[in-house]
Amino acid sequence: MLVYIAGSGAMGCRFGYQISKTGNDVILLDNWEDHIKAIQENGLKITGDVEETVKLPIMKPTEATKEADLIILFTKAMQLPQMLQDIKGIIGSETKVLCLLNGLGHEEVIRQYIPEHNILMGVTVWTAGLEGPGHAHLQGVGALNLQSMDAENQEAGRQVADMLTEAKLFATYDENVLPNIWRKACVNGTMNSTCALLDCTIGELFASEDGPKMVKEIIHEFVVVGEAEGVSLNEEEIVKYVFDTSVKAAHHYPSMHQDLVQNHRLTEIDFINGAVNTKGAKLGIDTPYCRLITQLVHAKEEILKIK
Amino acid sequence: MLVYIAGSGAMGCRFGYQISKTGNDVILLDNWEDHIKAIQENGLKITGDVEETVKLPIMKPTEATKEADLIILFTKAMQLPQMLQDIKGIIGSETKVLCLLNGLGHEEVIRQYIPEHNILMGVTVWTAGLEGPGHAHLQGVGALNLQSMDAENQEAGRQVADMLTEAKLFATYDENVLPNIWRKACVNGTMNSTCALLDCTIGELFASEDGPKMVKEIIHEFVVVGEAEGVSLNEEEIVKYVFDTSVKAAHHYPSMHQDLVQNHRLTEIDFINGAVNTKGAKLGIDTPYCRLITQLVHAKEEILKIK
Repeated sequence: MLVYIAGSGAMGCRFGYQISKTGNDVILLDNWEDHIKAIQENGLKITGDVEETVKLPIMKPTEATKEADLIILFTKAMQLPQMLQDIKGIIGSETKVLCLLNGLGHEEVIRQYIPEHNILMGVTVWTAGLEGPGHAHLQGVGALNLQSMDAENQEAGRQVADMLTEAKLFATYDENVLPNIWRKACVNGTMNSTCALLDCTIGELFASEDGPKMVKEIIHEFVVVGEAEGVSLNEEEIVKYVFDTSVKAAHHYPSMHQDLVQNHRLTEIDFINGAVNTKGAKLGIDTPYCRLITQLVHAKEEILKIK
Repeated sequence: MLVYIAGSGAMGCRFGYQISKTGNDVILLDNWEDHIKAIQENGLKITGDVEETVKLPIMKPTEATKEADLIILFTKAMQLPQMLQDIKGIIGSETKVLCLLNGLGHEEVIRQYIPEHNILMGVTVWTAGLEGPGHAHLQGVGALNLQSMDAENQEAGRQVADMLTEAKLFATYDENVLPNIWRKACVNGTMNSTCALLDCTIGELFASEDGPKMVKEIIHEFVVVGEAEGVSLNEEEIVKYVFDTSVKAAHHYPSMHQDLVQNHRLTEIDFINGAVNTKGAKLGIDTPYCRLITQLVHAKEEILKIK
């Protein structure tokens, strides 16, 4: 199987590295010059639970030419349309595309480029870090769930899940993956934006008297909108999941804090709280917490002159 | 007339200084030791539009004993109940109390200590700065509006307005002061909390694409709650007033930014956006923007370990 990783940041490197160990062909795609150069010259350096350096092909998305069997999407949410545009040349009629991006609403974007029967939507709890160009730090274990968007084409999803499990990425074919995607979006939508705005760790947010109150109101908006879209969500279970996650991740600054506060990069807010507000508006559901959070984050991006 | 200034920060010093020039007796009350010591030893130093140092009595609230003709309240909102408690000894049956605090809901607190016919509610656009203990910096001109809470006792309010105008503080007796108090609360409720959370100037907030959107939604919540309380508010006029104010104050960090970000002091959020949310809850009106802003500011206070 020829597998492209479309977006080879920390998570893309983890997946590319692990899949390459199974005898499948992996090509990394990315636009970060220093990263490409480092991997081309010295290979991909892995540290953490294992330490090794592997030779893996990496190139810019527009340079890829061989038709893909599978493309795993791991871009930042706002880079997805451009990536799909750039890799048109490697998408054949049987190319499967697995989306593992954080956030909501990506299937609508992907459908504009890929026929529904080739789209696989997934969600993962794997983590990874990038220490610098060409150097991924991999610790801990994870898993992922995925599903074929076309119910008639489950077989494609199951084959990809098997391949990923062989790569020790532990994928489960999930006949109802959307609730899991929304549940993870709730984690991001409660912690990322608030910790970025308050410049605090997840533990500090949840230890404050008002933090948990905000978190519950945000989750409620996600659940009401998700349910109205036909996604079956159990609010109580999601609240428990989010609070459990906050305990495990108490000492961490979430990724949006890294983007906004530490690195002054654009955030994915439009695909998390912003997506819920946009979906809510279409459905006639008011989601003021998600809307105000999105406005505050965008205002902060502008104040920091991030483009 | 014996006038006490209950809370002799920047604004209290301005009022005390200007009133003392009219031949009325002024006593400053405050709890800041260094400030009291500086004024007792060297007098109150005034710089800015005028430069002089004046001898004015200053003491702690609990040390005041002579019955007051007028007490002007200029504390931080959260210090008001303690101040009223501390100055019980100087409140006689004819002592008038003029409240010039920012924010909403103070009349309910004052009513617990002062009979309604002696309460004057006001709002001022005067400004002042404190350069350090015993040193006020006064620039620009202002004005104030005030009203007797007891419609039967307008005369008391008019007398105080005349005295303040004689002191060049330009007070107008206002037969309907509440809309003006709410309008100023809208200025504070839109700029103070948001600029504090976003760590930005008023100009930066209003120049961002999402800033004005947030501002309008916040004003709308203030107007709906105020109207439900029987205060006649013109939303369009308030929006214009807030935007005009933002232009004049574009380069400033509002006072809540100074409190929260610069000095790590508790904010007055409970008396601005928090007051609207509390009032709204009692009236069955949802005010999610005011509530989330209040929660975010309180969370930030806790994260900064401000008590």
